[in-house]
Amino acid sequence: MGVSVALVITMLELVGLFTFATSGALLAIQKGFDAVGILVLAILTALGGGILRDLIIGDTPPAAFTDVMYLVVPVVAAAVTFFAHPLLQRWTFTVLIFDAAGLGLFCVTGTLKALRFDLGPLQAVLLGVMTAVGGGVLRDITARETPALVQADSSLYAIPAALGSAGVVGAYHAGLPLGIVGTAAAVFVFGLRVVAMVRHWRAPRAWTRRRPEVGR
Amino acid sequence: MGVSVALVITMLELVGLFTFATSGALLAIQKGFDAVGILVLAILTALGGGILRDLIIGDTPPAAFTDVMYLVVPVVAAAVTFFAHPLLQRWTFTVLIFDAAGLGLFCVTGTLKALRFDLGPLQAVLLGVMTAVGGGVLRDITARETPALVQADSSLYAIPAALGSAGVVGAYHAGLPLGIVGTAAAVFVFGLRVVAMVRHWRAPRAWTRRRPEVGR
Amino acid sequence: MGVSVALVITMLELVGLFTFATSGALLAIQKGFDAVGILVLAILTALGGGILRDLIIGDTPPAAFTDVMYLVVPVVAAAVTFFAHPLLQRWTFTVLIFDAAGLGLFCVTGTLKALRFDLGPLQAVLLGVMTAVGGGVLRDITARETPALVQADSSLYAIPAALGSAGVVGAYHAGLPLGIVGTAAAVFVFGLRVVAMVRHWRAPRAWTRRRPEVGR
Repeated sequence: MGVSVALVITMLELVGLFTFATSGALLAIQKGFDAVGILVLAILTALGGGILRDLIIGDTPPAAFTDVMYLVVPVVAAAVTFFAHPLLQRWTFTVLIFDAAGLGLFCVTGTLKALRFDLGPLQAVLLGVMTAVGGGVLRDITARETPALVQADSSLYAIPAALGSAGVVGAYHAGLPLGIVGTAAAVFVFGLRVVAMVRHWRAPRAWTRRRPEVGR
Repeated sequence: MGVSVALVITMLELVGLFTFATSGALLAIQKGFDAVGILVLAILTALGGGILRDLIIGDTPPAAFTDVMYLVVPVVAAAVTFFAHPLLQRWTFTVLIFDAAGLGLFCVTGTLKALRFDLGPLQAVLLGVMTAVGGGVLRDITARETPALVQADSSLYAIPAALGSAGVVGAYHAGLPLGIVGTAAAVFVFGLRVVAMVRHWRAPRAWTRRRPEVGR
Repeated sequence: MGVSVALVITMLELVGLFTFATSGALLAIQKGFDAVGILVLAILTALGGGILRDLIIGDTPPAAFTDVMYLVVPVVAAAVTFFAHPLLQRWTFTVLIFDAAGLGLFCVTGTLKALRFDLGPLQAVLLGVMTAVGGGVLRDITARETPALVQADSSLYAIPAALGSAGVVGAYHAGLPLGIVGTAAAVFVFGLRVVAMVRHWRAPRAWTRRRPEVGR
């Protein structure tokens, strides 16, 4: 892979960091957390998935701890959200749109990095999805929410990311230009996630004779 | 350690992966999660403890990301559970039996791997127990259950694993054949866990003047 | 850095391990967990932040798994707390005092280790704070409490740690004697945290038109 791909990865990641951090900061404000909680959820949501990815492929210290921009961007996003959030009218939907943008960007960058470290196709897809959904799961667990990822009444989330990651893996092995494919995959994941939210597309549930209790 | 031990480790792990993944998938179905939630809990329960173990001993990427079988087995287990779970009549007990099998298998393989990476005896026991209980704790936290591991009203869980791990460490330093000892230890842990469940054996609680609130 | 600093780090860490483990064990007793739960929360609180730190800087196996004292101290602290806790009259405040001591000690040792591994100034502060607060967050998540770290109605916690870490980073780059500075920073963090608790100093919340629900 050439320099251009590394550049595309870095640029996509910085945009993704900002959107993910914003989604974390907005959830913290919704939950009534203080400034520290807002900063913690912003950093955790933005960097959690990437740190998991880098620990797993053994690229330590993770990018989040070597390039200072990876820290500066979530801190700025947290500060902007702290002051500017009243401008955002529709809380829940705004959180979800930002989240969808991060989902698309991070599954692509995670998959590309996994391929660069010579992981197999299936593992690269899993690591791409983990990069994308890991920060959000850590955010939800820290905020004591059941992760949207696993809930039956939430719209498709991991499935768009898995499809996008699989597309990137396929393009990589077919020798297609990764900058274009990666951007297209990120847009596809974002779009599919947003459409799934608007149309309430959901993943199937296992059939059960007696209806189980949902949540607690 | 010879080839035979490595083979025993791999075989035990694949069986353990299937049983742990099944316990995760069954809990997800009980909680009313969707297909993604079932797959996530299956993978997390099966691979979580081993990934923690490999990150700690510095063996990256973890086995779960190098040998594709470690991913295929939990995915198959999740799919089988998704369709076949109505055949399983007694939900809770079935989950616990599968969990006990995974407990025995993973504490042995975790301890053997820790010894292979030259950790001390006490550390090898801790890592063996972590390998065995780590996936279940991550499963419970993600599903927003108080981990059975720490609850006073749950039967012995970590203590059988600790005894099994200690037995493997002792046999290792005594030069006994690890294939036989490991199998015996796994069966012992499984049996002790099942007996503890049936007879409601519990770990002691600290004495308190006023009865504390349990759980939330 | 000379031998003396490494010695100071080790000594501070062993004291911090004991205090953190005690805070974890006391919370477990408050929650009605059993002996295993007490030991798990003691070990997790004491070693969680340091293990996170070592995984991130790539120093594997973490110190918690190479020097057996890092395991022995939390186990002893859990046993002492198990039997001696009725002597401790005021539960909640005692937990918080122990927690404050661990906070001061771990942010200093975490920052010093991050600097020793050549991390940048901002990253060293983040890693120092993570070392200090990581175990507590893992403790709270495992015990199904909303982490005190993010709650608006809890007194300053991460901010004293961040100030202490920043002081250590400044002193390191100014060439000041790290043994003295580290001790002073730990005492400062402990003192600021205790004063913040007594005077109910809190971090600011984001302004919201409608009061959001706090917690669940």
